Parts: sequence; structure tokens; C-alpha cells
Amino acid sequence: MKARVTISLKNGVLDPQGKAIAHALHGLGFDNVGEVRQGKVIELDLGDIAAADAPAEVEKMCTQLLANTVIENYEFELLD
Amino acid sequence: MKARVTISLKNGVLDPQGKAIAHALHGLGFDNVGEVRQGKVIELDLGDIAAADAPAEVEKMCTQLLANTVIENYEFELLD
Repeated sequence: MKARVTISLKNGVLDPQGKAIAHALHGLGFDNVGEVRQGKVIELDLGDIAAADAPAEVEKMCTQLLANTVIENYEFELLD
Repeated sequence: MKARVTISLKNGVLDPQGKAIAHALHGLGFDNVGEVRQGKVIELDLGDIAAADAPAEVEKMCTQLLANTVIENYEFELLD
């Protein structure tokens, strides 16, 4: 079983990487582009974790390590 | 209109960040976790780009800036 975790900055949190991407896109002539936000997507091989345990395990991985819950949101989906 | 671009390393490309995450998860007791791969998710506000033009525009943004197509795959979806 696999999990795909998507981590994004909370609204209102400054995103310097997003700003840098927007600035570079404008420099390439993509003038219409407005706000840009960058986040992370992490794919995990859950090995032989029981399907019933997987959501709680991934939740713990997110809160203990993968996401900084002060400034980041996280969501995840389980994949076969 | 918005676009969500997901960028991931091609198979076979070494992922040091993924390895570091896996190592840290093992250190926290998540022994079952196998391979971990980290990628990026970029959300773009496309401003007043015409809906018909959006796919081609985002494709150009990916190949010109957002993804290093030598080692990365990209996919995107358009969001209202």
C-alpha cells in the first residue's frame, strides 16, 4: 500500500518560493500569472502496514514529521 | 482560472530528500515505511488567460521553468 501526502502552506503564510516562481514566469513573458504557491507531495511505500491501521499511521507521520502544522496544511490519500 | 502542477522525479533518479525522510521516519519508529519520494506541487493563478489557451500556456511554463524535464516528470490539472 502507498500513501500520497500533499503539504501546502496555510493561507496568509508568506511563500517566498512561490513569489520567486511568479517573478521568473513574468520574466519569461507569462504576464497573466497571478499568485503562485508551492507545496510538497510525498509518496510513501507503507510496506506491510495493515490497511485498517494505515490512516492513523500516516496521520501520525504527518503530525510528527512531514508537516509543520503551525504553518502548513496536509492531506493524504491511500493508494493500492 | 487556476492550475495545479505536480512535479515528481523520474523513476531511477536518486531522491536524497526522500531517503532523508525515510530515515527520519524509521527513527521515529515507523519501521514499515519503504521507499519515500518527494516532489513539488505548484498552484498558479492564471489570471485572465483564456480557457482554450490555458493548457498550452501551462505546458510552456512547465517545460520552460517549472520542471527540469531531464530528471522530472510533470502533470497538471486546470481548476476553476
